[in-house]
Amino acid sequence: MKPDARNHHLDELNQDFLYHLGLDTNMDLEAMFGDVQYVCMGGSPVRAENFANKAAEFLGLGIPEGGAQPIGKTERFSMFKVGPVISVSHGMGMPSMSILLHELAKLLDYAGARNAKFIRIGTSGGLGVEPGTVIVAEEGVNAMLKSTFEQIELGEKREYPTTLDRQLAQGIIDSRGNIKAELGKTMGTDDFYEGQGRLDGALEPNYDEDKKMAFLRRAHEEGVRNIEMESTAFAAFCLRAGIPAAVVCTTLLDRLKGDQVTSTPEQLGQFSDSAQCLVLQYIRKQLSQATV
Amino acid sequence: MKPDARNHHLDELNQDFLYHLGLDTNMDLEAMFGDVQYVCMGGSPVRAENFANKAAEFLGLGIPEGGAQPIGKTERFSMFKVGPVISVSHGMGMPSMSILLHELAKLLDYAGARNAKFIRIGTSGGLGVEPGTVIVAEEGVNAMLKSTFEQIELGEKREYPTTLDRQLAQGIIDSRGNIKAELGKTMGTDDFYEGQGRLDGALEPNYDEDKKMAFLRRAHEEGVRNIEMESTAFAAFCLRAGIPAAVVCTTLLDRLKGDQVTSTPEQLGQFSDSAQCLVLQYIRKQLSQATV
Repeated sequence: MKPDARNHHLDELNQDFLYHLGLDTNMDLEAMFGDVQYVCMGGSPVRAENFANKAAEFLGLGIPEGGAQPIGKTERFSMFKVGPVISVSHGMGMPSMSILLHELAKLLDYAGARNAKFIRIGTSGGLGVEPGTVIVAEEGVNAMLKSTFEQIELGEKREYPTTLDRQLAQGIIDSRGNIKAELGKTMGTDDFYEGQGRLDGALEPNYDEDKKMAFLRRAHEEGVRNIEMESTAFAAFCLRAGIPAAVVCTTLLDRLKGDQVTSTPEQLGQFSDSAQCLVLQYIRKQLSQATV
Repeated sequence: MKPDARNHHLDELNQDFLYHLGLDTNMDLEAMFGDVQYVCMGGSPVRAENFANKAAEFLGLGIPEGGAQPIGKTERFSMFKVGPVISVSHGMGMPSMSILLHELAKLLDYAGARNAKFIRIGTSGGLGVEPGTVIVAEEGVNAMLKSTFEQIELGEKREYPTTLDRQLAQGIIDSRGNIKAELGKTMGTDDFYEGQGRLDGALEPNYDEDKKMAFLRRAHEEGVRNIEMESTAFAAFCLRAGIPAAVVCTTLLDRLKGDQVTSTPEQLGQFSDSAQCLVLQYIRKQLSQATV
């Protein structure tokens, strides 16, 4: 986090409870987290744990006996640390992501790890790309197809830009090797069913198949290559904080060709793996260059 | 769910995967869930499990050996069932809640349990009430203090009313016994820090203590008695679906007197317990009346 983005009110606190992480400033956060360089986030606790173990193996850090263990409480988020990498779950949707970002940014600031990069690794619905393609976001766009994140503060709406770090995105793309990956805009929505134009929600929708397809085609024409539920809040927060950030999501299907996932479970597993491997290839390259 | 709210597109599906619950319509959902009368939701998997065991004991259903076991997958939500009661976690925030509501409403419709009531039980920040008071919501209001929930569908904003079932709310209040409980408006926000006017987020806020207090006082004057992160999406969905719904949240502190939680851990545990007990007292009364 850049110093001028930091909340000056924090200086007035005797002790800061990072409530949803189960950590506080009476702990030796510098010893625990001072060496963090990369924070990798995924939706579920299972994915966060898998990624931590995969990172340990891939980066040659050695997996601890019994696998990586969570730090802090696990009621809301599950956080793991292997070497300079944090792997943490963010739940589903922008509000959950937003809570995590505030507490993580404070945590790393207190720990003195002020140059860490934040990378969200997830799954998504694709638009006009072959299922399994990894999209590295150039920027987040909201459900109105605008490159902004709207937040209400004390009853007033505010909009924040959702640009992501182009250099980081390009660096990740350049590490792709055999992984199918490309740049594109990532749309972040506040709902999985009606918010993403699905026709299989519980309630009778206000639109039909034709209107759905017209909207998805319009989004594709405007450069959107995938749809998920966190990108705009994530991009806006990191931009405000001065934290270099990337959104790296596998596409599980092509929404322009249908809403059903037709890949086999094996293929789906491989798709999910691709986004994680792409990020690990990038991190390994960066760490080895730093050592040279 | 009332029949005319149901999405007619579902009739065209050969099989419906309730993806985030890990259940599908090839299972015998009627045998598994046909007798459900109450769906109780809480934020975290830990609370959902605790409530299930507490419900089994309180309603005299007998706790299964080893405690209640989750049904379906637990990667996104954790769902338990004891007798006619489902206890399930919804994560944090409206988008996560919204995914759960769509899949739960479909689940119960497929199971033939079409008269179930939905009750969210949670914790919240209070406004002008003694910490520990349970607020039963008359309606949800959004962060603009309007009684609506805004959703973007195919690039267009739509607003849905957030009225809750008054009879159900009053029924819960009437079951309070020694529990301190009152009716009030519950504000639902999309963020815990800047979205609720806190001054201890990571980033320099756009407001100060005076502006924060002016907004909180205005909210109180307009009838808001507590603040959480799910009420408006929950109320709007249930109203559209024709599902009787209630939001029952303990207050952990009085935001008009400060942002710090000053109660002891024992008191906080008791506060959380109150909202759960209040709902169980209501359910027990209803079930015993039905038996007579």
